[in-house]
Amino acid sequence: MEETPEKKIVQLGHGGGGIMQGELIRFITENIPIKQISNGIGVDAYDDGATIPLENYDSEIVVTADGHTVDPLIFPGGDLGKLSVCGTVNDIIMMGAKPLALTSIVLIEEGQTFEFVGKIMDSFNKTAGEAGIAILAGDTKVMPRGTLKEMVISTSGIGIKPKNLIIRDSNCQPGAKIILTGSIGDHGAALIARREGIDLQTELKSDVAMLLPLYNIIKDQEGILAMKDPTRGGLASALNEWAEKSKVSIWIKEEQIIIKKEVKAICDILGLDPLEIANEGKAIICVEATFADHLLEKIQTTSIGHDARIIAEVKEEKSGLVVVQTPLGGKRIVEKPMGELIPRIC
Amino acid sequence: MEETPEKKIVQLGHGGGGIMQGELIRFITENIPIKQISNGIGVDAYDDGATIPLENYDSEIVVTADGHTVDPLIFPGGDLGKLSVCGTVNDIIMMGAKPLALTSIVLIEEGQTFEFVGKIMDSFNKTAGEAGIAILAGDTKVMPRGTLKEMVISTSGIGIKPKNLIIRDSNCQPGAKIILTGSIGDHGAALIARREGIDLQTELKSDVAMLLPLYNIIKDQEGILAMKDPTRGGLASALNEWAEKSKVSIWIKEEQIIIKKEVKAICDILGLDPLEIANEGKAIICVEATFADHLLEKIQTTSIGHDARIIAEVKEEKSGLVVVQTPLGGKRIVEKPMGELIPRIC
Repeated sequence: MEETPEKKIVQLGHGGGGIMQGELIRFITENIPIKQISNGIGVDAYDDGATIPLENYDSEIVVTADGHTVDPLIFPGGDLGKLSVCGTVNDIIMMGAKPLALTSIVLIEEGQTFEFVGKIMDSFNKTAGEAGIAILAGDTKVMPRGTLKEMVISTSGIGIKPKNLIIRDSNCQPGAKIILTGSIGDHGAALIARREGIDLQTELKSDVAMLLPLYNIIKDQEGILAMKDPTRGGLASALNEWAEKSKVSIWIKEEQIIIKKEVKAICDILGLDPLEIANEGKAIICVEATFADHLLEKIQTTSIGHDARIIAEVKEEKSGLVVVQTPLGGKRIVEKPMGELIPRIC
Repeated sequence: MEETPEKKIVQLGHGGGGIMQGELIRFITENIPIKQISNGIGVDAYDDGATIPLENYDSEIVVTADGHTVDPLIFPGGDLGKLSVCGTVNDIIMMGAKPLALTSIVLIEEGQTFEFVGKIMDSFNKTAGEAGIAILAGDTKVMPRGTLKEMVISTSGIGIKPKNLIIRDSNCQPGAKIILTGSIGDHGAALIARREGIDLQTELKSDVAMLLPLYNIIKDQEGILAMKDPTRGGLASALNEWAEKSKVSIWIKEEQIIIKKEVKAICDILGLDPLEIANEGKAIICVEATFADHLLEKIQTTSIGHDARIIAEVKEEKSGLVVVQTPLGGKRIVEKPMGELIPRIC
């Protein structure tokens, strides 16, 4: 039975970072009357952020927005506070911008203790402070019991970048290399394991981290074409977006993708694909081939990039496709995920 | 029985715009490590927004943040979409800035229809479009049934203003006049009436409106010292904040305050003070006495200011006090509200 458009229902999958998420986001954004300012990056670029070019000034403002609805609020490796700051700041960095400030809107369910709220906010503040980022504006609302579960934080990020620096999803070019800064699926798998009560021998932690060390490298690096943090929908979603928007194909070398054995185990048990699992402290960087090895070495010296690898190459042929190549010469197409059915993962 | 600090519980009153709200906001913000950028207005000014001064540029960025948790989502005179845009844009204008863009984070409960979500977002888009404001970045999360009631929108606003224009809560000066742009309490009273099922002969509507016509006047007006939109906590809260931060007293002429008979009726029935009821389309403007009459006339010509009046005068004596003077010479102190017990009003 087909649903009529009027009766179409919002499902959890519409928040999962895949095709269904794309459908909801298009629905929410398609009728926005003013989608960009001057020749800046607008909301309809569906990039990690947008830009506001300033008149008679050689820099432009970068803005990003994120709702953080993770459950449980405290999870192995992090909590809602740390996740909120990292998620938003990483989006600013993925646009090539220097993060300056955040706004934070904190919704709290009536009945939470000040102690618990304080614990989350201490983590929020500590993460922002360590990175030198100001919290400039905010709002706090209390919602009656039963109308919100515990606590949600919504953040917007503000950064600044030179106008002439173009780092965006649609900028990947044939011949370029793609660097991934570390193992995949840690965040999503750690949350799922905790929620499903899967007992791992060793504790798997979320990779939630701020990618500021990456910003400090790329700000002086030539040849950066695009950057993205593969959160909801994982690497599969992020690479498919690049292939689509840049009208290129992306060829992954399977043996360069690092998947921790705990992540693999969880995915095997639950029938999930690690390529589709959310990360919160990883980045992919598309860089002109000439600069790839040098950039990789620099990233490997940072705290967030020990395990960085060149994982893929960009090609012109078969535009729009993302392909995994196995060491023995096999090939398999990586589809954009449909919509992961794991709610409140970020 | 006194509560120990650890066991202190977040109550609905902590979201009500009064003393309790102040307590929660201080708790949330006091440990923010970086509260301002250069000599800009920081989060600890608790003003309607903050500023980011830009190096070698004569303008500065203004940022604001608002969570919109109104219930019901569609109410007499407006809805969540319109309220979200107006609330945030008005805060930018209250800083004397030109509104440029919004970010919006939309949280939706699983099971809502696309039709209903679309209705709210159409209103959001229409309001922003009419005012020439771009929606630049956003996020959409779907929350499982029972973990959120219906829908919440969090917005951040970005505007721009000349660095040398100082309009802020702490800037009220003795001798200055205070203009109020219209009747008070319409928004809060309309929502309460609807929720409590109070049957008024005429339908009372929320005053939710964008104050852009006011911006168009004040941007070229000398002598503006402070502006504020008296939302949660109403006029009582807004004027007390001014008196406190500017270290002045404020003397209201009771007969200049317009309260619609429906608002008065609802307040009488429920034992509420109209001065403490939320407005969503009104502003108070503190202006040097010389310019007050001229400014008032200009405001009265706009769609949002037909009923504007000079309602009060700023004095040096009795710093911190807000006083209502009756026509017969009586006086009564207007306290900061404790914390209105009406949740999800904005």
